[in-house]
Amino acid sequence: MSRRRIGIDVGGTKCLGVVLDDAGVVIEEQRRPTPPGTEAFVDTLAELATALGVTDSLGIGVPGMVTRSGVIKASPNLIDITDFEVGRMLSERLGFLVEVGNDATCAAAAEWQVGAARGATEMVMVTLGTGIGGGVIAGGQLIRGANGFTGEIGHMVVDPEGLPCPCGRRGCWERYASGSGLAQLARVAAIGKRLRRVVQLAGGDPDNVRGENVQAAAREGDVEALNVIDLFGRWVALGLVNLTNVLDPQMFVLGGGLAASGDLYLGPIQKWFTELLYAPDLRPHPQLVFASLGERAGAVGAALMTELR
Amino acid sequence: MSRRRIGIDVGGTKCLGVVLDDAGVVIEEQRRPTPPGTEAFVDTLAELATALGVTDSLGIGVPGMVTRSGVIKASPNLIDITDFEVGRMLSERLGFLVEVGNDATCAAAAEWQVGAARGATEMVMVTLGTGIGGGVIAGGQLIRGANGFTGEIGHMVVDPEGLPCPCGRRGCWERYASGSGLAQLARVAAIGKRLRRVVQLAGGDPDNVRGENVQAAAREGDVEALNVIDLFGRWVALGLVNLTNVLDPQMFVLGGGLAASGDLYLGPIQKWFTELLYAPDLRPHPQLVFASLGERAGAVGAALMTELR
Repeated sequence: MSRRRIGIDVGGTKCLGVVLDDAGVVIEEQRRPTPPGTEAFVDTLAELATALGVTDSLGIGVPGMVTRSGVIKASPNLIDITDFEVGRMLSERLGFLVEVGNDATCAAAAEWQVGAARGATEMVMVTLGTGIGGGVIAGGQLIRGANGFTGEIGHMVVDPEGLPCPCGRRGCWERYASGSGLAQLARVAAIGKRLRRVVQLAGGDPDNVRGENVQAAAREGDVEALNVIDLFGRWVALGLVNLTNVLDPQMFVLGGGLAASGDLYLGPIQKWFTELLYAPDLRPHPQLVFASLGERAGAVGAALMTELR
Repeated sequence: MSRRRIGIDVGGTKCLGVVLDDAGVVIEEQRRPTPPGTEAFVDTLAELATALGVTDSLGIGVPGMVTRSGVIKASPNLIDITDFEVGRMLSERLGFLVEVGNDATCAAAAEWQVGAARGATEMVMVTLGTGIGGGVIAGGQLIRGANGFTGEIGHMVVDPEGLPCPCGRRGCWERYASGSGLAQLARVAAIGKRLRRVVQLAGGDPDNVRGENVQAAAREGDVEALNVIDLFGRWVALGLVNLTNVLDPQMFVLGGGLAASGDLYLGPIQKWFTELLYAPDLRPHPQLVFASLGERAGAVGAALMTELR
């Protein structure tokens, strides 16, 4: 009998657990609500793993800063959980070493091993959601960094005098190039008395404009909405260019909520990428592809992490 | 008899060749002027290698964009050399595979193997000279990237509406945090009628202010010069923070011309690094150390590259 590789992706509202077959295909999945409090959190993870038939292989993906030894330092979605040794507690409970990693790092592992970047040796995964997460494959390895914090790319500062970020600094990339960044760019444009159609779709109040409203108006062909998408594409490209300068990847895998409407963004991102890249004529440009594992990427990657440590 | 490992670092004016003993220590070195033209260039490299007693191990470090297969795509210091297959030509001439790499990548390899970062598994080398170069060690490997262009960190955009860069874009990190960046920050301050002592040291003309003038005035305790150093430290720190967010290194090795006056900068860089780092209280901060191999780092690393490919 082959090993039952199990992965759990912890989200703000639910935990998704999956079982992989030998080829890395999901053969079973179950969900549980993410409970408040550390004790109930560990209970839920252990119960979900047991329900999925865990034997000796479990990986957990958690948003936020997770150390290589399985300590959640802080997580944006688990506000009552800080400096919590979830790895050690689960390992003791289950009797084998449980691997814990950042959810975007897990997603990168999944797309690399069984998804859109299969076979790549140099790849950066960028998850464009409310914020921006990331994961790095370099030299044919999953890079985790000194502490496990590789890929906090949403907090690259791209404008030192820019928009304030809840992290306490200014001009972090995710203030511009995430889902909330798109909404912010649209609100700024709307308050300048523009974006009539977008504001209409948002119910008439510029302050209520969301990324979805921009997308919907852009799909109708609204020029002002398309201009916001273009500006957004410029900010996404700027960060991708910086990552290219640092890491020279062969490929970016774009995931997260915004990847679902990727067709709207791909053109602008590619145009601006070429415009902003250092020495664009002297090099092959990295491929821009969308993630193929959807919302399961984190859980699949968590299951694979046990073999990548 | 052990292998004669030979490395040559190509500079704008001279080529430095070294021979390493088994421990990686330089036991012999020779210099040649860097000649103009591709033919003389290959002749010089082959002659220097022969003079150093090359047998079957030669690495070459070249500034600029060098592919993994030894093609110089473009080099700021070798203006008449573009798209030139120096690796293939030297390999044919000498009868064995000659390794060619970017000079900052070579310097990173050297500091990692036999210098300030010995034993590190996660390290970023930053060479602060006229521009900024870089090299990346991650997951215990030298990272070269899809094309060999890993570490073009001087062209990370840190202010999209910032100072124009000769590369054609705006706000590249090296516009602020390099030797020429320091001079530029000082000239901007001087033109605003400040920096009397610095301008005096520059012969009275604000347009002639150089980094050395700022350093000299700062060493005298001139407050205005120290303010420029502080601002410069902020820009250096901003880039180091971005690299930390991407790669989570345990250590930065600072090299290049400015490292020689590193004592002036270290305090401001560290202060601003803590100020600008994402989640500074939740993580050990990477060590900031200065390069230990000085101007030989590129040549030593070039010699070691043959074993790291």
